[in-house]
Amino acid sequence: MSGDAMLAQALLRPRSIALLGASDDPGKTAGRPLRYLREARFTGAVYPVNPHRDTVQGERAWPDLASLPEVPEHVFVLAPTAGVVDAVRESARLGVRIVTVLAAGFSESGPDGARREAELRAIVGASGTRLLGPSSLGVVDPAAGLVLTANAAFSEPMLPGGRLFVASHSGSMIGALVSRGKARGIGFAGLVSVGNEVDLSLGEICMATLDDDGIDGYLLFLESLRHGARLREFALAAARRGKPVIAYKLGRSAAAAEMATTHTGALAGEDDVADAFLKDLGVVRVGVLDALFEAFPLARRIAPREPGSPPPRIGIVTTTGGGAAMAVDQLGIRDITVQPASAATQAKLADAGIDAQAGRVLDLTLAGTRYDVMKRALDIMLAAEEFDLVLAVVGSSARFQPQLAVEPILDCRGSAKPLAVMLVPEASEALARLTAASVPCFRSPEACGDAIAAVFARRRPGEQPAGIPPAPAPSREVMPAPTPPSRMLSEAQAYAVFDSLGVPHAPALTCPIEGPVPALPFAYPVVAKVCSADIAHKTEIGGVVLDIMDSGALAAAIATLRERLAERAPDADCREILVQPQRGGIIEALIGYRVDPEAGPIVMLAAGGIWAELARDRSIRLAPVDLATARVMVAEVRALKAASGLRGRPRGDLEALAEALAALSRLALHPELGVIEAEANPVMVFPEGEGVAAVDALVRRTGR
Amino acid sequence: MSGDAMLAQALLRPRSIALLGASDDPGKTAGRPLRYLREARFTGAVYPVNPHRDTVQGERAWPDLASLPEVPEHVFVLAPTAGVVDAVRESARLGVRIVTVLAAGFSESGPDGARREAELRAIVGASGTRLLGPSSLGVVDPAAGLVLTANAAFSEPMLPGGRLFVASHSGSMIGALVSRGKARGIGFAGLVSVGNEVDLSLGEICMATLDDDGIDGYLLFLESLRHGARLREFALAAARRGKPVIAYKLGRSAAAAEMATTHTGALAGEDDVADAFLKDLGVVRVGVLDALFEAFPLARRIAPREPGSPPPRIGIVTTTGGGAAMAVDQLGIRDITVQPASAATQAKLADAGIDAQAGRVLDLTLAGTRYDVMKRALDIMLAAEEFDLVLAVVGSSARFQPQLAVEPILDCRGSAKPLAVMLVPEASEALARLTAASVPCFRSPEACGDAIAAVFARRRPGEQPAGIPPAPAPSREVMPAPTPPSRMLSEAQAYAVFDSLGVPHAPALTCPIEGPVPALPFAYPVVAKVCSADIAHKTEIGGVVLDIMDSGALAAAIATLRERLAERAPDADCREILVQPQRGGIIEALIGYRVDPEAGPIVMLAAGGIWAELARDRSIRLAPVDLATARVMVAEVRALKAASGLRGRPRGDLEALAEALAALSRLALHPELGVIEAEANPVMVFPEGEGVAAVDALVRRTGR
Repeated sequence: MSGDAMLAQALLRPRSIALLGASDDPGKTAGRPLRYLREARFTGAVYPVNPHRDTVQGERAWPDLASLPEVPEHVFVLAPTAGVVDAVRESARLGVRIVTVLAAGFSESGPDGARREAELRAIVGASGTRLLGPSSLGVVDPAAGLVLTANAAFSEPMLPGGRLFVASHSGSMIGALVSRGKARGIGFAGLVSVGNEVDLSLGEICMATLDDDGIDGYLLFLESLRHGARLREFALAAARRGKPVIAYKLGRSAAAAEMATTHTGALAGEDDVADAFLKDLGVVRVGVLDALFEAFPLARRIAPREPGSPPPRIGIVTTTGGGAAMAVDQLGIRDITVQPASAATQAKLADAGIDAQAGRVLDLTLAGTRYDVMKRALDIMLAAEEFDLVLAVVGSSARFQPQLAVEPILDCRGSAKPLAVMLVPEASEALARLTAASVPCFRSPEACGDAIAAVFARRRPGEQPAGIPPAPAPSREVMPAPTPPSRMLSEAQAYAVFDSLGVPHAPALTCPIEGPVPALPFAYPVVAKVCSADIAHKTEIGGVVLDIMDSGALAAAIATLRERLAERAPDADCREILVQPQRGGIIEALIGYRVDPEAGPIVMLAAGGIWAELARDRSIRLAPVDLATARVMVAEVRALKAASGLRGRPRGDLEALAEALAALSRLALHPELGVIEAEANPVMVFPEGEGVAAVDALVRRTGR
Repeated sequence: MSGDAMLAQALLRPRSIALLGASDDPGKTAGRPLRYLREARFTGAVYPVNPHRDTVQGERAWPDLASLPEVPEHVFVLAPTAGVVDAVRESARLGVRIVTVLAAGFSESGPDGARREAELRAIVGASGTRLLGPSSLGVVDPAAGLVLTANAAFSEPMLPGGRLFVASHSGSMIGALVSRGKARGIGFAGLVSVGNEVDLSLGEICMATLDDDGIDGYLLFLESLRHGARLREFALAAARRGKPVIAYKLGRSAAAAEMATTHTGALAGEDDVADAFLKDLGVVRVGVLDALFEAFPLARRIAPREPGSPPPRIGIVTTTGGGAAMAVDQLGIRDITVQPASAATQAKLADAGIDAQAGRVLDLTLAGTRYDVMKRALDIMLAAEEFDLVLAVVGSSARFQPQLAVEPILDCRGSAKPLAVMLVPEASEALARLTAASVPCFRSPEACGDAIAAVFARRRPGEQPAGIPPAPAPSREVMPAPTPPSRMLSEAQAYAVFDSLGVPHAPALTCPIEGPVPALPFAYPVVAKVCSADIAHKTEIGGVVLDIMDSGALAAAIATLRERLAERAPDADCREILVQPQRGGIIEALIGYRVDPEAGPIVMLAAGGIWAELARDRSIRLAPVDLATARVMVAEVRALKAASGLRGRPRGDLEALAEALAALSRLALHPELGVIEAEANPVMVFPEGEGVAAVDALVRRTGR
């Protein structure tokens, strides 16, 4: 058995379990796991451990782990925080494979908690025992009868099995997902509440289950992006196996991002970085909770797309114009345009006797709510080459007369082209039948628009850098990890890095700050700047002089820079100035690279200037990116449209900007350079055909 | 009985009904109304009319309307399109009060349809008969047993009554709303499918029901903003009576807006204009379909807010951190920040023995899922003055142990401060109990965030202009209505209008284009422009010369303008040039006023330049606005933040900009001026304290 398989077995299908601190009261949190295991007829050994009682819920209770007749494979620690460290130590001593810890009160709760967490780390680090939690509500595997959880949601006797695996940062959410899934006829192959991920992380757990043939896909509830390296590994492996991963991630708003921080002690990171991470690794990121379920069958039918693919083409067939308009609207606000049928398709529809109103959607109207009309229309739309997906929007007949519009959909389920359904009324039976038939089915316009957009936004994972450069470790509020030492390069040194990558920059002449005025290899006007690795923000100390028109002005400028250095940065080691020609562009851009603590190497593009900043108008991808992806990034930054020839305005060389971006992103392929941050800001974008040039540069390397 | 009451009675509680074209087959569209009326035990007279049969569904059938023993109050025309005009004419001849027309095929379907629609207009215009439709699926009044509809959704035997009235542009949606409402335990006082609104419009119908004590509020499903004047009248009257109006409006995306056009032949208009219209009239506009129901109980508790009110303060109590984080996120992306409890409130909580984790939400955790803990926490949060609304986010206990967290909420329902609930699991029983108790209750994080944001975004209707200036009639694709003649003013004339309103502009000197170079009352540099009512776009003909530094250059500029006029606009009547000092601002803005065909007078603010245009970054209100509202509009335009002192940038005189905006908006109070459009673009915003100045102006008046 592989390591992964052994981990999955001990976690989800242990042969023996100890419930440490099991309560006699089956309604109490610490009493629930025993009750649930018995109700689910778990067939392995279960040992309630409670030093204060002879029996627990009518079963023999054991005084401690050491007294058990065998070493249990899995220990669920239900005891309060204070007893956790000892329980885990004892489990490790005995050679228990998995310890799951329910209690909270670790790194999220101040210095004492952080100290307790460090003890846990030390114990599991020095043993073969693996830890799930703390703050884990447990694990569930319906097929194995393993309901090893304290979540009240599992009080329900019948827990439907299924082929989806759920992993959640939030313990309470696994219960919510079970009940919401049940209402849609969706069950699960397993659920795990990962808690604080002190040892086992969400990515590692999912990875361990990837070989399970009973699992078709994964639903992730993420509070933030953490343990990114493990998650990356899992997502790539899942993509290779064609098992879709759907994720709902909190932190789209600043307030929620901050909550994730206080909740677990981890830094939340920027949401758009996490978004790029997920999409680039082939994960479907949904924004509507219902879509977490509802996107899965669609993701099975639609492969991740190549970067730069044309926009998806959605065709709609409906019997309810108002309902279809909601779908069009929800897709439209997510930048997906519903396409009308082509002339050829319309002709086929007419030949088939289908009286469809011309327009963006094929509206069969109330009169077309008949099996034969719907079936013929679907067959023709599904055969039409102009669509990537056909969406049937079904009205009230879905509730009362499924034979009219739902049956024909079921009868089309074998079509080569994906077919999805949006139900306009409340129609739980139709929903359950369509779900059982694996037809992607949405019960709200919002989930419909969100799921379709999310599935098509998923990208086929590209070339991943072999050796990811060392990232600054994520710092924690209460227990800051040491940030690896880093050092900034001077602007001239940074340009040398740019040269090695092929990122164009303005010509730059360095000369001693104390020397004579240099002869310039380029024409005036020029700009003169202090050039030092000690000075990150030149303008703040007045270290930049613009509009220098001749050599006399240059001499004066150098003198000014010397004075300002002496006055405002007396301790900086600055021996050079840097002179560049001063030339404005059609527009200014910012390109940046950094090794994110969780996402790894990323590359970013934004327009320069304050408006772009106000509008948070930027595009992010995992690095490296190829030119096709870089072009898509250029198209994603709205402000750059001002340089795309719009309304007779001059065109900027956006192709050269894309090339510069791709070049900068290749830093990810050169971990030996040790660059953890590189930024060109601004990059001047000259008229079409004249290229781009970075006119300032910042590069930070690991090491001193 | 008032006219309104008579209309409502004939529409919703007629004493007698004729079903023209009733089918013998109760499953067919034309057979459903008779079946539904009988199943609902409608007590009035019902006359099936069918010239081809003696009986219909076992009842006596009448050959035509004239043969009936009485003139029916309400005729439902179920006949195909071709027979509709004759049926309506006959009804009008007989003195029928209401004719409802099911068939489509009018102005939305080409010239023949438009001609038929014109005939309908002529018939009802010349009689006392009122018309609902065409394309109306009918009307329903459960209390009266009036199920006068062909919608398949009403096949259900039990149609719960309720206190909400639904009016919908889409006929199929009334069925969907009934089924979705039923799943939440929500019934209706009445539902109407308004169809093409050839005569009776949605606003007029709702207005007619406003005195009905059985109706507490209104849910509107709008495809576009049409018949705005009637809708305005209704919304204002509903606001005066304190009956909330909740609207779901399509057209947030361009594609859906276009669909609304093809669907009914009406122009869709701009969504943000409609949005301002609804919010300014006190309507709650939701964006999530479920919120259409779920916002109502909240809207009853929270009054429309004064313009410029501080942002709403939401406090959250929860037993599930992950669930609460979803609510925080969904509120956050709608710019509503959840507030932590104040120190005083935290102290009270501690005194009450509530062990709450510090943070943005009051997280009682799993351990706090107990009646007494929840009740005490709610009591303290509801008494805390720092919150406008308390939201309880309830986890799995809502499904299995409502006594723990749902009961305490029910027991707090009498609190002075509004309390809302978000259910994280699927928990239909808790939902129904909370709904029955009128506790605002959300079953998804999206509906929760949307409904709360929408209710707080609703504004108390301000001063409405007494006489709304004549609007250009909405044009229709197939039957363009005549646009009232309008004429543009010259820039100099436009400034005279600005002067009368108090909108500041740059000093402007006009002088004959053929005369000598004028002496200027202001300093150089100046700009010279052609000045003519015939030339709307001066720059397009080279009619603007910038950077004029002295009188010689001014003479040359005037000569240049003369040449360009002769060459590029030889037919324009242009006898003057206009000279202004040339002075740049900190930032440029655009302020505009127009009389929208549906929304009436509106005022708009945007930043100048192409980026603002790319980002669709503008703020709109119904005109006039007071200074407080104008200030809010300034704050809403993101690009203007660049002139708000951000990061040490210079501050622009945004207060003067708000004053200019309010001044321009007062055009709405002066219908006698006949202005239908006025725009100052750009307005230069000078440094704080130095004011603003329009440097170009466009005014369009009615008449030639």
